[in-house]
Amino acid sequence: MLANGTARYALLIDLDGVIYQGDRLVAGAIEALDWIKRQRVPHLFVTNTTSRPRAALLEKFETLGFSASADEVMTPAIAATQWLANHGMQKAALFVPPATVQDFSRVDTVTLDSDAAVDAVVIGDLGEAWDFRLLNRAFQMLMRDPQPCLVALGMTRYWRGKNGLQLDVAPFVKALEHAASCEAIVVGKPAQGFFDAALEILGVSAERALMIGDDIVGDVGAAQRCGIRGIQVKTGKFRDSDLDGEIEPFAVLDSFADLPAWWERTLST
Amino acid sequence: MLANGTARYALLIDLDGVIYQGDRLVAGAIEALDWIKRQRVPHLFVTNTTSRPRAALLEKFETLGFSASADEVMTPAIAATQWLANHGMQKAALFVPPATVQDFSRVDTVTLDSDAAVDAVVIGDLGEAWDFRLLNRAFQMLMRDPQPCLVALGMTRYWRGKNGLQLDVAPFVKALEHAASCEAIVVGKPAQGFFDAALEILGVSAERALMIGDDIVGDVGAAQRCGIRGIQVKTGKFRDSDLDGEIEPFAVLDSFADLPAWWERTLST
Repeated sequence: MLANGTARYALLIDLDGVIYQGDRLVAGAIEALDWIKRQRVPHLFVTNTTSRPRAALLEKFETLGFSASADEVMTPAIAATQWLANHGMQKAALFVPPATVQDFSRVDTVTLDSDAAVDAVVIGDLGEAWDFRLLNRAFQMLMRDPQPCLVALGMTRYWRGKNGLQLDVAPFVKALEHAASCEAIVVGKPAQGFFDAALEILGVSAERALMIGDDIVGDVGAAQRCGIRGIQVKTGKFRDSDLDGEIEPFAVLDSFADLPAWWERTLST
Repeated sequence: MLANGTARYALLIDLDGVIYQGDRLVAGAIEALDWIKRQRVPHLFVTNTTSRPRAALLEKFETLGFSASADEVMTPAIAATQWLANHGMQKAALFVPPATVQDFSRVDTVTLDSDAAVDAVVIGDLGEAWDFRLLNRAFQMLMRDPQPCLVALGMTRYWRGKNGLQLDVAPFVKALEHAASCEAIVVGKPAQGFFDAALEILGVSAERALMIGDDIVGDVGAAQRCGIRGIQVKTGKFRDSDLDGEIEPFAVLDSFADLPAWWERTLST
């Protein structure tokens, strides 16, 4: 599937913090994406975003000035729907933003104040909608016998918002795992299954793939644990101290805009 | 310090779920406490309650029909004040209920919307007051450089309230530990230091002490890890499945009311 020359490698691309930050494009990102298309580098956007459905992501791309098709974008909600179906889980309680529920159209969902038994409790990034009542509701569902499966839409720890660092989905999943003595099935980064699925879609082996992201743990470290080379960008949630830890990225770039020049220098032989 | 006969052993007593449940006494608890006093069993109430100050606990006892002195009650807030002083930590952000702040009178505290650097971020059981904004505020404080110390007022996972099981402090501490990549100092059950301090106050060794509680992990398991015999009561948050795990209590009683008869049968030789 891989062409010769520049496209000997395939690329997994994180979105928020790499291509854009909130509603602002990262400078030079469109030009770098154009280069990727021109060079026919096989690529897939792999995001842990659960705050909006895939359809809304594609619309956002258009607004920002670039485009992608649905099958070029992998989200945890899409992966979770697949996982629930594969494991015969029909009934789920969805702790995800209202808009993201549309990605679960194949799942039988219960309202969060329902006392119906569920097969799975699905946790996404509810952001400011989290409060004690809601987290406790998920906990009470997990304490039923038999215990439903806890499904985490990614394990991103935090992201950088307008008001500084913001908790993402992982801390809430960790809270529930500890309270209910269970272990979450993670669909999304940094789970190996998510990267494996991405490689399968691209039809490449790990050593022929690169992952570019702003999260030293969830993007770079997680990819490298799967044998995929990780490229750290210094945008998004990046902090200088990220490079003091045990994770050594294959490359560190100031931003996504620097990818083409770096690629031509390093990978095109 | 230990007298002969019945009082060869000292007793650590959990409060909520053992002596009372919310605002209701456990039936027969007063009579059992009277027996403990008559037999001069050295005892200490060890609670992870952070929802009210120690002074309010003593008042609650009076309302319920029994009494204790301040030095008969150990709470995580009292232990935390001591720990902060011992470690030269002067400035702290307190995520504890307003009333409990009085137990920290020796600590210099900052308001939670302050940007002042702190030595410690102290997490108690805020219950329904927890929301995203507050948890994120604690997280942002922990992401400062240098990182403040995360101090957990106990690690109780949940308790049984009027509306079923309720998340306690531990899940929120776990959320923060994971988000900010740090490990909390736990003052309160199930930390060994908390039990050691209790034994020191009573002047007994672990093998001469018993701990009675409703939490199979935080009371019974934690005490037994310290060499203290654990007695599980079937009141409070107890669930039958608690006995299916790895923790084997030294004894299981229907309630605190059964303690005197069990004690005379088992320990008084």
